[in-house]
Amino acid sequence: MLKIVLLGGGNVAHHLFAQFSKNSEIELVQWYNRSISAIQKFESTTLLTNQLADLKPADIYIIAVSDSVIREVSSSLPFKDRLVVHTSGNSDIQVIDSKNRAGVLYPLQSFRKEKKIHWNDVPLLLEAENEKDLQLIQRLAKSMTDKVYRINSKQRSRIHLTAVFVNNFVNHLYSIGAELSEQAQIPFEIFIPLIKQTTRSLENSPAKTTQTGPAVRGDNSTIESHLDQLKDPLYKDIYKSITRSIIKTHGGEKL
Amino acid sequence: MLKIVLLGGGNVAHHLFAQFSKNSEIELVQWYNRSISAIQKFESTTLLTNQLADLKPADIYIIAVSDSVIREVSSSLPFKDRLVVHTSGNSDIQVIDSKNRAGVLYPLQSFRKEKKIHWNDVPLLLEAENEKDLQLIQRLAKSMTDKVYRINSKQRSRIHLTAVFVNNFVNHLYSIGAELSEQAQIPFEIFIPLIKQTTRSLENSPAKTTQTGPAVRGDNSTIESHLDQLKDPLYKDIYKSITRSIIKTHGGEKL
Repeated sequence: MLKIVLLGGGNVAHHLFAQFSKNSEIELVQWYNRSISAIQKFESTTLLTNQLADLKPADIYIIAVSDSVIREVSSSLPFKDRLVVHTSGNSDIQVIDSKNRAGVLYPLQSFRKEKKIHWNDVPLLLEAENEKDLQLIQRLAKSMTDKVYRINSKQRSRIHLTAVFVNNFVNHLYSIGAELSEQAQIPFEIFIPLIKQTTRSLENSPAKTTQTGPAVRGDNSTIESHLDQLKDPLYKDIYKSITRSIIKTHGGEKL
Repeated sequence: MLKIVLLGGGNVAHHLFAQFSKNSEIELVQWYNRSISAIQKFESTTLLTNQLADLKPADIYIIAVSDSVIREVSSSLPFKDRLVVHTSGNSDIQVIDSKNRAGVLYPLQSFRKEKKIHWNDVPLLLEAENEKDLQLIQRLAKSMTDKVYRINSKQRSRIHLTAVFVNNFVNHLYSIGAELSEQAQIPFEIFIPLIKQTTRSLENSPAKTTQTGPAVRGDNSTIESHLDQLKDPLYKDIYKSITRSIIKTHGGEKL
């Protein structure tokens, strides 16, 4: 069994706690949070503390706190030469104070407190400073999910950029779509099957090979009519910038 | 039973044929295509013809052909005062020659020949010139799917614009994401669970309420670092235009 100490009381920490509690490969030795009240209701199942000085020995210390306080928490740890990992997608492995061995266990998923996490669907992206620690983190990760990847800090920042495109920006396009359809009294639900089909097809075919629409067809009259219909200049800009990029990416293929 | 004559030999026609063949509410009287060879292999199950003059009587004639030839096919029909519907998202109901009663049965889905269609997931958008014909088309549609909507020609053109945002543009963002991650030797599959989660959440919460990312947080240093990482000026433009729109939409909420 892997002995784990968990630090932090936010969404990620709560979801990790729920996972560790039912994971037979893991012994959750202790849960630390600066404020005990945030985790108080779990005192019957786990040893809780709000004192870093009281931390027990463990194989891995997991710091699941906001990006801005990882450094502070890690440098306040009252021991050295132990394996300390953070769970952030945006922070370099180096933010872990060098008195301990540093690692990263980054779950690529967005966590909300009320939403159940299916850990086996969550990719865990790992980093460590040496091979032995990587194997330890890997053992932990594989007890949680089949989707385990070794990713360095530079790749992790690229992952963040990519996620902005495929998640944050996509979500904003859905939001624009909902607004456009509402204006014409069209229920947005009619688009859900189409959206799901596109998502499903990602698992079999690269998106580039399945591109459809007026831009890839070079259908300028439809593009003009769409730009006419769009009243918001910001939506026009989005329409134009993506259309230009589709035309450049696929230019000549179907024109 | 509804007597149907199907006209056309493309993807939509083939998928409609497959549906009608197993639909107990429908009697597929005849299948017309200009070229018999494209549909020849179904001659044992259905009466085929390549002669418009041979068309049999039916309750509904469904013209599932390219947008550009709907008008021509409908005006070549050798009868009048019958119900003739097209299946196009981009064509007005008026393209059906006025010697017959016009209607539209538009399946909001993208069809590829090799891909199985789950009709019960496909929204069917209906239009007719009079209430009685609408009810006839509705009877047909409801025998195919639970998702049946009455949509006029003006709404249908708005649907097309919306689908460009939520389907074509989203797909291009996936394509950019795949390129960005490949450049850093990151397997794109790690993003699939996140993408699916966003799609699933659309069914419960409007996209506007679940927006995350640096733009909605007003996190300018991350935005600057992302723009630095993007080398392609077209991708920079997309990043800027969507970021501006997110900031405008959510401005002040979380800043």
